[in-house]
Amino acid sequence: MTQLVMGKSEVYQNALPELNPSYRLLLGPGPCNVDPRILRIASAPQLGHIDPEFFAIMEETAYLLRQVFQTKNEMTLCVSGSGFSGAEAVLSNLLEEGDTLIAGSLGFFSGQIVEISERAGAKVVNLATELGQPLAPETLAQAFKEHPEAKVFATAIAETSTGLWQPLEELERITHAHGALFVVDAVCGLGGVPMDVDAMKIDACYAGSQKSLGALPGLAPITLNDRAVKVIENRKKPVQTYYLNLHKLHRYWNGDHTYHHTACSNLVYTMREALRISLEEGLEARWKRHQLNGEALRAGVKALGLSILTQPGYELPVLTAITLPEGVDELAIRNGLLNEYQIEIGGGFGALKGRLIRIGLMGYNSCRKNVDTVLSALEHVLPRSGLQPAAGAALAAADAIYKAKT
Amino acid sequence: MTQLVMGKSEVYQNALPELNPSYRLLLGPGPCNVDPRILRIASAPQLGHIDPEFFAIMEETAYLLRQVFQTKNEMTLCVSGSGFSGAEAVLSNLLEEGDTLIAGSLGFFSGQIVEISERAGAKVVNLATELGQPLAPETLAQAFKEHPEAKVFATAIAETSTGLWQPLEELERITHAHGALFVVDAVCGLGGVPMDVDAMKIDACYAGSQKSLGALPGLAPITLNDRAVKVIENRKKPVQTYYLNLHKLHRYWNGDHTYHHTACSNLVYTMREALRISLEEGLEARWKRHQLNGEALRAGVKALGLSILTQPGYELPVLTAITLPEGVDELAIRNGLLNEYQIEIGGGFGALKGRLIRIGLMGYNSCRKNVDTVLSALEHVLPRSGLQPAAGAALAAADAIYKAKT
Repeated sequence: MTQLVMGKSEVYQNALPELNPSYRLLLGPGPCNVDPRILRIASAPQLGHIDPEFFAIMEETAYLLRQVFQTKNEMTLCVSGSGFSGAEAVLSNLLEEGDTLIAGSLGFFSGQIVEISERAGAKVVNLATELGQPLAPETLAQAFKEHPEAKVFATAIAETSTGLWQPLEELERITHAHGALFVVDAVCGLGGVPMDVDAMKIDACYAGSQKSLGALPGLAPITLNDRAVKVIENRKKPVQTYYLNLHKLHRYWNGDHTYHHTACSNLVYTMREALRISLEEGLEARWKRHQLNGEALRAGVKALGLSILTQPGYELPVLTAITLPEGVDELAIRNGLLNEYQIEIGGGFGALKGRLIRIGLMGYNSCRKNVDTVLSALEHVLPRSGLQPAAGAALAAADAIYKAKT
Repeated sequence: MTQLVMGKSEVYQNALPELNPSYRLLLGPGPCNVDPRILRIASAPQLGHIDPEFFAIMEETAYLLRQVFQTKNEMTLCVSGSGFSGAEAVLSNLLEEGDTLIAGSLGFFSGQIVEISERAGAKVVNLATELGQPLAPETLAQAFKEHPEAKVFATAIAETSTGLWQPLEELERITHAHGALFVVDAVCGLGGVPMDVDAMKIDACYAGSQKSLGALPGLAPITLNDRAVKVIENRKKPVQTYYLNLHKLHRYWNGDHTYHHTACSNLVYTMREALRISLEEGLEARWKRHQLNGEALRAGVKALGLSILTQPGYELPVLTAITLPEGVDELAIRNGLLNEYQIEIGGGFGALKGRLIRIGLMGYNSCRKNVDTVLSALEHVLPRSGLQPAAGAALAAADAIYKAKT
C-alpha cells in the first residue's frame, strides 16, 4: 500500500472504500457464524459503562452465565478480551512467583497454559500428551507425587487443535486429593459439551464467547469458586496485571460496580443474547444437537476416505480434526473451500501444520445443513489433491447417522 | 434476582426478555455516541481472525491508524481490550523489574500509569500534579536529576478526570535530554486534539477507541517507534503477559499474521470505519470542530454560574470539568439529566467525587446541537440543587462564541 503523505494537507488521499465483508460460512475452530439475533443486538444503541441501566444488563448477563456454567459461584463475569485474556486472568491471579503449576497440555491451545503460567512467574510441570490423546490419570498422579507442592493443575475439557474431548473426573479427583486447585479451559467447550462447573468440582474455569457459546469474539466468560477466590485474596504480592485484575473486575461486574475499565456495552448485549439463546434451547438439548451433528460429520469424513486424528471415543463433537494422507496439500483444500464455497475451515497448528484440516460445528452453525454442505464441498475439492472419494458416500454416511439417531 | 434452579430440568425459568437499551445521549467522558455508519458496520457479516480477507482489513486499519496518529511507526496496531489494555501493553512491555519510571500523573486516569507500572515491577517516581494543572517542566527536570537512571517518563496529553490538556513540548525535551523514553497516554485525546506522534517525538503512545476517535469501546490503538521496539526486543526477561505481548501482537497485525488471539472482526470493522470518518473530515477540521464546541460549552457553563476546574488556558476541548459549589448534590444533577433527558454526563473521581460534573463532546457528539441541548437541560435541572442560573444566559453565551468563531 502506498504510504499516504502525512501532515497538513487536509486532503484524505488514497481513501479506502466502504467495507463490505464477504459472507463466509465459518466452519473453522471459531468464531462461528452467530444467530442473526446477535448481530442485530450488536448495533443497538450504546450505553455508558457506568450507566445504571448497563449495570442491570451486566447483572443479568452474569446471572445467565451462571446458568450456562451451572454454578452458583459469585465470581462469574466476562473479561473484556479474547479467550486467552480469560486464561491469563485466571492463571495470573491464582499464581505467584515460584508457585508450581502442573499443566495437562493437550495441544496448541491448552499448551498456552504453560507459557501464560511461566510468564506469570510459576514453575510449570508440563504433562504434554500425544496429540489427540487425553492425559492419563496415572501420569498426573505421578506428577503430584514428584511435585507435592503443586498449587494448581490446569487442563482443558476440549482442545480445539486436536479435536479432543477430555474426561475430567479422574483428573479432578487426583488434583483435589493433593489439595491443589482444579482449573479448566473450556474456551471451546462451554455451550457445546456438558459442563457443570459445580458438579464437576472445578475451582476456576474460563471460556470463549465465539465458539460453542455462539457469541461474537471479544469477551471471555470466567467463573471461580470461593476456594479460588480465597487464594487470590491471600496473595502475598499484587497480581502483575491491572487490566486482568480479578478483584477489580469482580467488583465492577458483581459488586458495587466501581469503575475498572470501559466495557463495551454492545459486546455485552451480544453475550446476553447468546446466553438467552442457549438457555431457550436448553443446555441438554444443545449438547445433544452438537453431539449428533459432530457424529454425522465424522461418519461423512470417514466415508470420504479420511481419518480422524483424535483417539476414538474422545472425539469432540464441536470440532473434528481430520488427518490428511502424506503429500496432500492442506492449503489447497482450505483455499478451495474458501474461494469457491466461501467456507472457512481450520488447518493444523504447530507440529500438525499442513497435516490436518479441522471442521467446527459450533453454536448456531451446528446443524445438518452445514454438515451436508461441507461434506459436499469436500467431495468436490478433494480430487484436486489426488484423493478420490466415492461419489455420494459422505452424504449417505451422514444420513445414516441422522436416520439412526433421530 | 431469584437464583434459577440449576440442573437437569431443561426448563428455562425466569427467562429474561429481549433487550431494548434506552437511547442515551452520551455526553460523559466516553464512550460517546458513534456515527450511525459505525453501528451499521458492527452488524456486518463476521470474518474469521485468520481469513486472508480479514488480514487485508487489519492492514488497512493499521494504515489508517498511522495517518490518524501521524506516524510512520511500523508497530501500530489495536490491542483487543479497553484503553487500559493499551496502557498496560505499552508499559509492561517496556518495563522490566527494577526499572525506574517517572509518572506525570494528572488525575485518576494518567494516575493509573503508577499502578500499572508498579504491578509490572518498576520503581515509580510519582509526580502527581495539583488536580486541573499540568506538570511543571522544572519538576520533571528535578526528578530526572534525582533519578538519572529513569528509563521511561509517561504522562497524558489529555486527562479526562480533570479536563486537562497538557502541553508536551518541554516534557519531551527534558525526557530525551536524559535519554529516557517518552510515553504518552492519548486515550481521550486522539482524534480530538492535535496529535502528531512523529513530530512530537513520542516514543510510545496509546489511545482509546470510544472517545474522540468516535468508535465503539473494545480496541486500544497503540504505536511505538523503533527506539521503543528495540527496548522490547532487548528485554532481559520475557514480558509477564501473554495476552498483551507486543511482539506477538505486532506479528499478528503487521507481520506474517501468525495467530496470537481471536480478534473480533466486527470491532475491527468499526475501528476502520471510525478512522475513515476522521480522515474524510480531515484531522485539522476535526480538531477545530472539537475546539469550537468545547469553547462554546465552557462559555455556556460559566454563564450558568459554574466554574471550570481546569487551570485557564489548559482546558481540554473534548471534556469539560465543572466544579460545583459547596453543598450542591452532584448525583441529583446527573440523575436529573439521565432520567428526564436521557443524557449521560460524568461525575468526579477519587478526590473529586461529588464535587465535579464532567461533560464530554467527543467525536460524533461534538456538535452545536449537543452543546445547546446539554446547556438547556442543565439550566432546567440546576435550580433543584439550589442554583439559580439566569434564564437563557447559557445559550446566549454559547451563541456568542459560535458567532465570533464561525
